[in-house]
Amino acid sequence: MTETKMGTLYGIGLGPGDPELLTLKGYRILQSVPIVAYPKSPDGRCISRSIVADYLKPEQTEIGMDFPFKLAESSQPKYDYWAGVLAEHLAAGQDIAVLCEGDPFFFGTFMYLFNRLSPQFPTEIIPGVSSVMASASMLRTPLTYRNDVFTVLSGILPAEKLTKQLQHTDAAVVMKLGRNFEKVRNVLKDVGLIDRALFVERATTDRQRIVPILEVDPAEVPYFSIIVIPSEWDWAKG
Amino acid sequence: MTETKMGTLYGIGLGPGDPELLTLKGYRILQSVPIVAYPKSPDGRCISRSIVADYLKPEQTEIGMDFPFKLAESSQPKYDYWAGVLAEHLAAGQDIAVLCEGDPFFFGTFMYLFNRLSPQFPTEIIPGVSSVMASASMLRTPLTYRNDVFTVLSGILPAEKLTKQLQHTDAAVVMKLGRNFEKVRNVLKDVGLIDRALFVERATTDRQRIVPILEVDPAEVPYFSIIVIPSEWDWAKG
Repeated sequence: MTETKMGTLYGIGLGPGDPELLTLKGYRILQSVPIVAYPKSPDGRCISRSIVADYLKPEQTEIGMDFPFKLAESSQPKYDYWAGVLAEHLAAGQDIAVLCEGDPFFFGTFMYLFNRLSPQFPTEIIPGVSSVMASASMLRTPLTYRNDVFTVLSGILPAEKLTKQLQHTDAAVVMKLGRNFEKVRNVLKDVGLIDRALFVERATTDRQRIVPILEVDPAEVPYFSIIVIPSEWDWAKG
Repeated sequence: MTETKMGTLYGIGLGPGDPELLTLKGYRILQSVPIVAYPKSPDGRCISRSIVADYLKPEQTEIGMDFPFKLAESSQPKYDYWAGVLAEHLAAGQDIAVLCEGDPFFFGTFMYLFNRLSPQFPTEIIPGVSSVMASASMLRTPLTYRNDVFTVLSGILPAEKLTKQLQHTDAAVVMKLGRNFEKVRNVLKDVGLIDRALFVERATTDRQRIVPILEVDPAEVPYFSIIVIPSEWDWAKG
């Protein structure tokens, strides 16, 4: 009896949204695997799939995974379930690419599959361009110089915590804005950073929008928006 | 008299070192330009060029720019000089790709050219995979979950500042180690993070080396090394 060679689980970082910001390696592996899996939101949207839709092949099997997108105690069973589904394919020797917006290990959902499957199956992570870096590029603002301290914050954090963090960094990015936008903007005003702060929605995608931060309508801020507070440019630095 | 169309300055993020971690967009633009420029160290090495050496074409003109690699008051004249050289080509209508390890706007030297040339010439930034994300991938450790605070620090910072920053973050990366390694490791011991800290040299390159952090010889740490302190994995998080 021959033993079946196990399949490899690939976590592929797709980058921030522009399909061309996928890496050469991600592209090669994506096209080589028989199975492509990705998160599916409750309303059926598959944002990560839409980024690389043009690269997928009709003969590839697709698995849309309905992860819980909100904080809830019930999230573990769903991750267990989908890890189980992927495990069956891997055990049968099929390679799987899991699509990950941005970078697989920088926030996101891939980690929950990785933590469940990597002890049993060969796993490879293909890093990707983070929306952190892409947003600074689209805003045409250098983010960090020399020995700057750089901090990434979630807009979901309480105002007090955001305030403290922003007071002790040279440059920062605030992600996960959406309904948290107004709180974050008020914090930036309070700590005197509002004049340096820049705002971009859906950076690098065909729906990218750059709006002066004081003109943003807090009621219309998508989740995939970012505030960038670049390091202060000082000619003495170079 | 026809006016010459100005050339475009491209800052291309090459990613952390594996040539395949260049983006599709970076690859396309790199192969389309007549001129490729990159930093050259005092001993003649061109690290960024070596990453994409296989993608360059013999007919492309190469410009090796000898930037000052150390903090020195004399750095501005060099940036002025090379900006002037590139400006002549751009004014003559030639596109230029400037090679940038990692991401063009996340530390690095491209910013100094961008700040000098973008007011006059069309400029486009192609973001790249940062060694921050790539190191976590190579160390096979998810970096950040949900609403973690994430901080990037330079090993050049004084111990006191490193200590304070590390005490107020959920996950961190310390770059620019080299001769600063021992100081950083001592700080990690002092703040109780040494057991979580991971070390990688030259992540994703063919000279990558992962060593348990307590076994690293401080005398042999290259500048392109990174310490990753991942967020603490908590099953209750998902």
